[in-house]
Amino acid sequence: MSEDEKLVKEITPKTEDFSRWYTDVVRKAELADYSPVKGCMIIRPYGFALWENMRDALDRMIKDTGHVNAYFPMFIPESYLKKEAEHVEGFAPEVAWITHGGDKELEERLAVRPTSEAIICSMYAKWISSWRDLPVLINQWANIVRWEKVTRLFLRTMEFLWQEGHTVHETAEEAQEETLKILDMYEDFAVNTLAIPVVKGFKSDKEKFAGGVRTYAIEAMMWDGKSLQAGTSHNLGQNFAKAFNIRYEDRNQKLQYGWSTSWGVSTRLVGAVIMTHGDDNGLVLPPKIAPFQVVIVPITSGKNPQKVLAEANKLKDRLVKNGIRVKLDDRDEYTPGWKYSEWEMRGVPLRLEIGPRDIEKGSVVLVERPDRKKNFVKMENIEAEVQKLLDSIQSAILERATKMRDEKTVEAENWEQFKKIMAEKRGFIKAYWDGTRETEDKIKEETKATIRVIVDENSKGKCIYTGKETNLYAYFAQAY
Amino acid sequence: MSEDEKLVKEITPKTEDFSRWYTDVVRKAELADYSPVKGCMIIRPYGFALWENMRDALDRMIKDTGHVNAYFPMFIPESYLKKEAEHVEGFAPEVAWITHGGDKELEERLAVRPTSEAIICSMYAKWISSWRDLPVLINQWANIVRWEKVTRLFLRTMEFLWQEGHTVHETAEEAQEETLKILDMYEDFAVNTLAIPVVKGFKSDKEKFAGGVRTYAIEAMMWDGKSLQAGTSHNLGQNFAKAFNIRYEDRNQKLQYGWSTSWGVSTRLVGAVIMTHGDDNGLVLPPKIAPFQVVIVPITSGKNPQKVLAEANKLKDRLVKNGIRVKLDDRDEYTPGWKYSEWEMRGVPLRLEIGPRDIEKGSVVLVERPDRKKNFVKMENIEAEVQKLLDSIQSAILERATKMRDEKTVEAENWEQFKKIMAEKRGFIKAYWDGTRETEDKIKEETKATIRVIVDENSKGKCIYTGKETNLYAYFAQAY
Repeated sequence: MSEDEKLVKEITPKTEDFSRWYTDVVRKAELADYSPVKGCMIIRPYGFALWENMRDALDRMIKDTGHVNAYFPMFIPESYLKKEAEHVEGFAPEVAWITHGGDKELEERLAVRPTSEAIICSMYAKWISSWRDLPVLINQWANIVRWEKVTRLFLRTMEFLWQEGHTVHETAEEAQEETLKILDMYEDFAVNTLAIPVVKGFKSDKEKFAGGVRTYAIEAMMWDGKSLQAGTSHNLGQNFAKAFNIRYEDRNQKLQYGWSTSWGVSTRLVGAVIMTHGDDNGLVLPPKIAPFQVVIVPITSGKNPQKVLAEANKLKDRLVKNGIRVKLDDRDEYTPGWKYSEWEMRGVPLRLEIGPRDIEKGSVVLVERPDRKKNFVKMENIEAEVQKLLDSIQSAILERATKMRDEKTVEAENWEQFKKIMAEKRGFIKAYWDGTRETEDKIKEETKATIRVIVDENSKGKCIYTGKETNLYAYFAQAY
Repeated sequence: MSEDEKLVKEITPKTEDFSRWYTDVVRKAELADYSPVKGCMIIRPYGFALWENMRDALDRMIKDTGHVNAYFPMFIPESYLKKEAEHVEGFAPEVAWITHGGDKELEERLAVRPTSEAIICSMYAKWISSWRDLPVLINQWANIVRWEKVTRLFLRTMEFLWQEGHTVHETAEEAQEETLKILDMYEDFAVNTLAIPVVKGFKSDKEKFAGGVRTYAIEAMMWDGKSLQAGTSHNLGQNFAKAFNIRYEDRNQKLQYGWSTSWGVSTRLVGAVIMTHGDDNGLVLPPKIAPFQVVIVPITSGKNPQKVLAEANKLKDRLVKNGIRVKLDDRDEYTPGWKYSEWEMRGVPLRLEIGPRDIEKGSVVLVERPDRKKNFVKMENIEAEVQKLLDSIQSAILERATKMRDEKTVEAENWEQFKKIMAEKRGFIKAYWDGTRETEDKIKEETKATIRVIVDENSKGKCIYTGKETNLYAYFAQAY
C-alpha cells in the first residue's frame, strides 16, 4: 500500500459511517483534538486559522451594521442569573459553578456565563438613562460554558467560542427590526462567506431562547440529512429590561422600559462547514475562509530542483502580494503524491503543481480541490487566474450544497409519508403544524424530527399530524 | 461654570492625586467600568476598540515571527496543575475553582486557568514525538482568572485578557533564543506602537515565573515614578517537559525532553498607555492605536450649517478612504466647545475644526491633542497633512515619555541616597545588588522598592545595601 493510499484510508468513507467520517476528518486534518477535561476541545492551529477567518469576516459585518465590540466578565453572580425566571430555569442545569477563590469559599456562587444577558443587562441598567442613549448596539466575542452531557468536536462542546450581540432600543418595532436585520446578516454570512445555504424562520415556543419572546434562526442541511442550527437572533421584548430595570426617559420625559435583542453564532459553524462541503478525501474549504487558499507543491525530484524551488518561491511571493493566502510545501521528506493527498485532506481549494517541464513551458498546473479539475495556466497571468479559480470554486461549492439541500427538502403529503421519509432519507420536510406542544412532542417521539423553523405564519393548511386547520407552515428535521 | 470647564473639572488633577486621576480618566473616558462581580471589570466599547488595535498590531508581529494561534480549554483538572510543584505552589492561592456542573458535584475540581502551561503542555506531550515536530510555536488570546485581593481597573483585575505564547524547542540554545526574541518583540511593540519606552532585563529568582528557569521582562516608568511590568518572557528549561513528559526522538534516534518557553502581555498594557501619556485634560492616545485618530467637529452655529456638515462629511470620507480612523461628531445637542473638551478627554490625537469661514478659505484647523498646537491646513492636502501630523504626534509622545523616564532614572551612590530618592521622587534607581534574597527583602522592607530587572550580570561593583562585591546590576523601583 502506497503512502498516498494509506493517508486516505485513514478516513472512514462518508457513506459507511458519517459520524466517524466527521471525527476522522476533524482529527486527521488537525482542526481539533480532545482535551483532558471531558467535553472540552482544543482548537488546533489549522482549525483556529479557519475560525479566525470566519470571525474576522463576521466581525466586519457586525461593525458595518453599526455595532461595537466590548468585553464583559465571564462570571455572573447566582442572584443575577435568577432575576429572569424563565432564563435561569432554562440555563441552570447546564451551568458550571465557581464556589472557591484560592482557599476561600465564596459567599455567593458564581456562574461561568452560559450566555451573558444577565451580566450585560445589569450594566445597561446603569448606563442607559435617556432615549439619547439608545440604541445600544454592543457585541462581544467570548468563551461560553454549558455543561453538556453528550459532546462532539465543534458541534457541541462544554466550552465554545462565540459572538453575542446585545442591543437595547426605544420601541418594540426597532427591536424587531434589529432581530430580523441580524438574521439576514447571518444568512448573508452563511451563504456568501461559508457557502452554506440556509433556511430561515422562527422557533416554536418549546425551542425558543429561555426568557425571550421570539427566537429566529438559520438552519443548514448537512450531508447526512440532519439539520444544524447555525445562528439565532432573539427578540427579548421587555422581559430582560423589566427583570434588570433597564429604563430610559423617553422623548416626552416619561420613564419607559427598553426593548432588547440578543443574537449569536459559535464555533459550531466550523462543524457546519465540514459537514456541508467535505467528501471521502477529507475537507473541502470555501476559498473565502480557507487558512491556505493555494498550496504550492514543487516537483523537485527531476533535474535542477533548486531552480524549481526558486520559481515556486517567486510565484508564492506574487500571490501573497495580491492578498492570497499561500502555503509552499517544500518539505524534503515527503513525495509530491503524499503532499497532494495531505492537502486535499486538509481541504485547500487550489493546488499549484510546478516542475522543470512546467517552467520550460512557462506554465503551471492548478488543480481544484472539489472535483480535481486540472487547469493549465500561464505563469504570467497567475494572480488573475488564481483569483478567478478561487471565486469559481466558492460559487461551485455553494451551488453543490444548495442542490444537495434542495434534494433533501420535500413536502410531506400525509403523516405516513412523513414518517417514512424521516426513517429513510431524512432531510427537511415542509409541513403544516397545528401550533400545539402536544403535536410537536408526538412528532418528535415518533420520528425524532423537530420543528427547525416556522417559515410562514399567515398561510392556511392542515396539520400533518392532527389534520387540524392551521396557519403555521414549518420545516421539520432531525437535528444536531 | 461653563459646560467645558465642568467636564474637565470632573477629572482630579494628576498632581493632586494620581490614583484618583487614573480612575477618573478610565471612567469618564468610558474605557472601563466596575462590574457586579468584585474585582472584575467591564471593558467598554471605547476601551475595547483601543485594546483591539493593540491586539491586532501585536498579533501581526506574533504571526510574522512564525507563530500560529490556537485555543485551549480554560478549565484545568487540579491534578494537572499539580504536576509541576513550584508552579502549583505559585498559582494555587489565586485559583478560582469549579466544583459543580449543573446540580452535580464534580469528581475532580477544575481550575479556571491562571495561565495555561499545564493544559497546553499535556497536549504537547501528545502531539510531539520527533525532532521533525519541533519547534512548536503556538500562541493563544484568552481570558485569565487570578483571585486578586486588591484590584484596579486594567492594572490588576480578577479576570483579564491576554495573549500567551507556548513554545517547545530541540535545544536549550533555541529556547533561550526564542525567549529573547520575544522580549525584543515586546520592546518593539511597546516603543513603536504604544510609544512607551521600556527597560528590559531579567527577574530575580523571587520574582520569576513559578516553575520557570528565568523570567525576562520589560518595565515601563509611569508618570508617578512607579514602574509597571509590561510584558514577560519565560525560559522554562526542561521543567515543564519533565513534569508533563514532553519527549521527542532526536536526530540520533534518542529520546530527549523538549525545552520550552512561555510569554505574555495583557490588558494591563491599556493602563500603561493611560498612565504614560495622559494629562490633566484626560487621555492622550498614541495615533497608532487610538480608536479614532481624528475627530471632526463641524461649527454649525453660523450660516449655512448644512454646507458645513456636507463638507465635513466629504473630508471624513476622504480620510477614511486613506485608512484613517475618523469620528465625525455631528450631534446637535452639544456646543463645539463641549465637544473639544470631550474628545480631548478621550485622547483623540487630532481634532479637525471646520466652519463656514474655513470653507471659504479652503482650509481647516487641525489641533494636536498633546500640546493643543494649531495647524492651518489646505483642504486639498488633507490626507497627507493628517498622516504627517499623526506620525509626528506618535514620535512626539514617545520622545516626551522617554524624557520623563530618563529624568526619573538615577544611579544611587549609597544606601542613604537610595532611601531618600525612593521616599521622595521615586523612579528607577540603578544599583548593584549582591544577589541574595535577604538583601532583596530588606530593600523592599525599607523602601517598598523591588528589583524590576537585572540588566547586567557580568559587571563589577558593590551592592548598594551590603557593600559586597557583585556582578549584578539592576533597576530598582516601586511597582504597580
